[in-house]
Amino acid sequence: MIRFAQRMDLLQGSEISELLKLTARPEIISFAGGLPSPELFPVEEMKAASERVLAEDGTRALQYSTTEGFDVFRQQIADMMERQSCIKAHRDSILVTNGSQQGLDFSGRVFLDKGDVVLMESPSYLGAINSFKTCEGRFIEIDTDDTGMKIDSLRSVLEREERVKMIYVIPDFQNPSGRTWSLERRKEFMDLINEFQIPVVEDNAYGPLRFEGETLPALKSLDTRGLVIYLGSFSKVLAPGYRLGWVCADGKILDMYGAMAQSSTLQASTIAQLEVSRFMEMYSLDDHVDKIKAVYAKRRNVMLKAMEQEFPGEAIFTRPQGGLFTWVVLPEHIDTTEMAKKCFEKNVAYVPGASFFPNGGNRNCFRLNYSCMDEDRIVEGIKRLASVIKEELLCMK
Amino acid sequence: MIRFAQRMDLLQGSEISELLKLTARPEIISFAGGLPSPELFPVEEMKAASERVLAEDGTRALQYSTTEGFDVFRQQIADMMERQSCIKAHRDSILVTNGSQQGLDFSGRVFLDKGDVVLMESPSYLGAINSFKTCEGRFIEIDTDDTGMKIDSLRSVLEREERVKMIYVIPDFQNPSGRTWSLERRKEFMDLINEFQIPVVEDNAYGPLRFEGETLPALKSLDTRGLVIYLGSFSKVLAPGYRLGWVCADGKILDMYGAMAQSSTLQASTIAQLEVSRFMEMYSLDDHVDKIKAVYAKRRNVMLKAMEQEFPGEAIFTRPQGGLFTWVVLPEHIDTTEMAKKCFEKNVAYVPGASFFPNGGNRNCFRLNYSCMDEDRIVEGIKRLASVIKEELLCMK
Repeated sequence: MIRFAQRMDLLQGSEISELLKLTARPEIISFAGGLPSPELFPVEEMKAASERVLAEDGTRALQYSTTEGFDVFRQQIADMMERQSCIKAHRDSILVTNGSQQGLDFSGRVFLDKGDVVLMESPSYLGAINSFKTCEGRFIEIDTDDTGMKIDSLRSVLEREERVKMIYVIPDFQNPSGRTWSLERRKEFMDLINEFQIPVVEDNAYGPLRFEGETLPALKSLDTRGLVIYLGSFSKVLAPGYRLGWVCADGKILDMYGAMAQSSTLQASTIAQLEVSRFMEMYSLDDHVDKIKAVYAKRRNVMLKAMEQEFPGEAIFTRPQGGLFTWVVLPEHIDTTEMAKKCFEKNVAYVPGASFFPNGGNRNCFRLNYSCMDEDRIVEGIKRLASVIKEELLCMK
Repeated sequence: MIRFAQRMDLLQGSEISELLKLTARPEIISFAGGLPSPELFPVEEMKAASERVLAEDGTRALQYSTTEGFDVFRQQIADMMERQSCIKAHRDSILVTNGSQQGLDFSGRVFLDKGDVVLMESPSYLGAINSFKTCEGRFIEIDTDDTGMKIDSLRSVLEREERVKMIYVIPDFQNPSGRTWSLERRKEFMDLINEFQIPVVEDNAYGPLRFEGETLPALKSLDTRGLVIYLGSFSKVLAPGYRLGWVCADGKILDMYGAMAQSSTLQASTIAQLEVSRFMEMYSLDDHVDKIKAVYAKRRNVMLKAMEQEFPGEAIFTRPQGGLFTWVVLPEHIDTTEMAKKCFEKNVAYVPGASFFPNGGNRNCFRLNYSCMDEDRIVEGIKRLASVIKEELLCMK
């Protein structure tokens, strides 16, 4: 008889992936995905970089390479982290991964035994939740406000819970909320972390996409005791198709991630590393990021303005300073998972909020993505959404 | 305090990876790795394929894509499996992975809870052993002879052990032994599997590299009840640098692998899939495999002939009909892990056999790779090895 591992019971096919498949239809105005805008991909530049790699370094590009990644590439990543997130890291503290999703996967497996506790913001990234579920940990959501995890709530859980093994946070332009932690909150958080000596996984996939305001230092840059594991990604600043991300961590922790990499996929793609590395040599990734930011900032402006004009006052939403998402909270009696079906009939889609809460509840929220729809469609989509929300509010009265 | 998951205790940095780092020095004649020969990589062809993909399909190549992989690519894989391994599979029964190592990783996680039992040949692939260790399963090694797993031994374990969740096998040109299961043994094995209904992970990274003799049907082609999970790889027939492999399985099992893919890396590289797919459209992968086979067959011949001439009669070794490896068994009192250091002083390297036995022991064997050294170096390396073995035999007398 075929018997699966118990962890598989926790991973039932999500409503989300079914929803996302449906939203691929061209008539749908989809705010559901988290996709970068494809017309911004530097296709010509990547073509030139790829030609150079295969012409000059072809056999190396097609062979196995080391688990940790190429030294030159890791140095480029270290330099970029310093520019973008104020982190001074040695290239040897970097492990290249198959996208930063793999960094999440490793995090769960490195720290969590069955029944161990992971703390996260409420709400948090659904891909991280799914990934940690495979380790059969328990989730405790920490109250989060507009400036980050609430320190009091965090302290009381840390004092009470024996089995906290890891804290997962997205301090910059959080997925799904779009919120960013204040500098003060970051410092308070690190003080508490140092007191309790708990490893922190800092997911910074969106940090480089700041449209306005001052760059805030990553938690990793404030980490004096090697407790922060920083996850970076090329998916949002360059292109997701290469599946390249990285982990930056110290000493023994990085060794553990390396062992996990060795046993799970051996290494990230050799040729992808060389091509992206060559791109960064031949062109300025920073300039490219500036182009992306200009487009996304405009789309965010258009979306927020349309929401202000169209949404009823009962719909509360965040005003992100960067990243890809805004987050909408409706009155508690509205179920956004149900409402999504009505929106779908009007050819507009979002991700219902329930998926972002590991312990369920909170069915009155949803996430909107503004990065991959043009401005006219954003306005039209928000209008359609607003009309459904208004109907829902009416029904409920 | 930082506390790692218990599984990490099982994954201590292997002697092997340290050894392999040392063997990268150019003066070393290394039979240690399992690398394909880089001068056979179709660099020019991949360059042409890559140019076409980026010119004609650039934005799609750089974007996210589906977890299961592109339909066209999966169809090409299905066609190839039919040609190479007599498997008739629908493309929908294929999941593209980040190398077939990821298929191993998923296998452990889909089936094994802590304390569950995985059965494997004795010896077996060390990368699979390491991967399954992360699930904290127990290993039971099944006696294996020149024609495959011994059916009596397998039956007695299946009758006795409640918690067998999975059987891992490499029926073609096994790593490390180079041995291939006979057709009769394959049939007997499948009869037993059908009786006990235990999932079988069939790792066929080497099957397409048959130098002589008739192609034998893969276990998957004999599987009438959806019990076999077939793992394929582009690493040995094309190039490992893309990190592309696949899982072929049925129904609910494949769904579980897909859920695991979604939570661990989302998908395999989009651009790698499109490039390799385009290569297969523009050129014949079968012709390319023929070229590889011709070179490896010659190297195998040279190695075996040198071993026959140089090795003392006490050294027993296999005569593989394909693949990358031969396996040497010395008298029991010789410790090949110790002997490796002496060989290293003579600038010749192999992988000591102990790593291929999950429950330890068997320190008198070692694995030799013949795919990535030219013929002169093979002869010279075998001479050096032979002299060390002879010394060891003398010391012991």
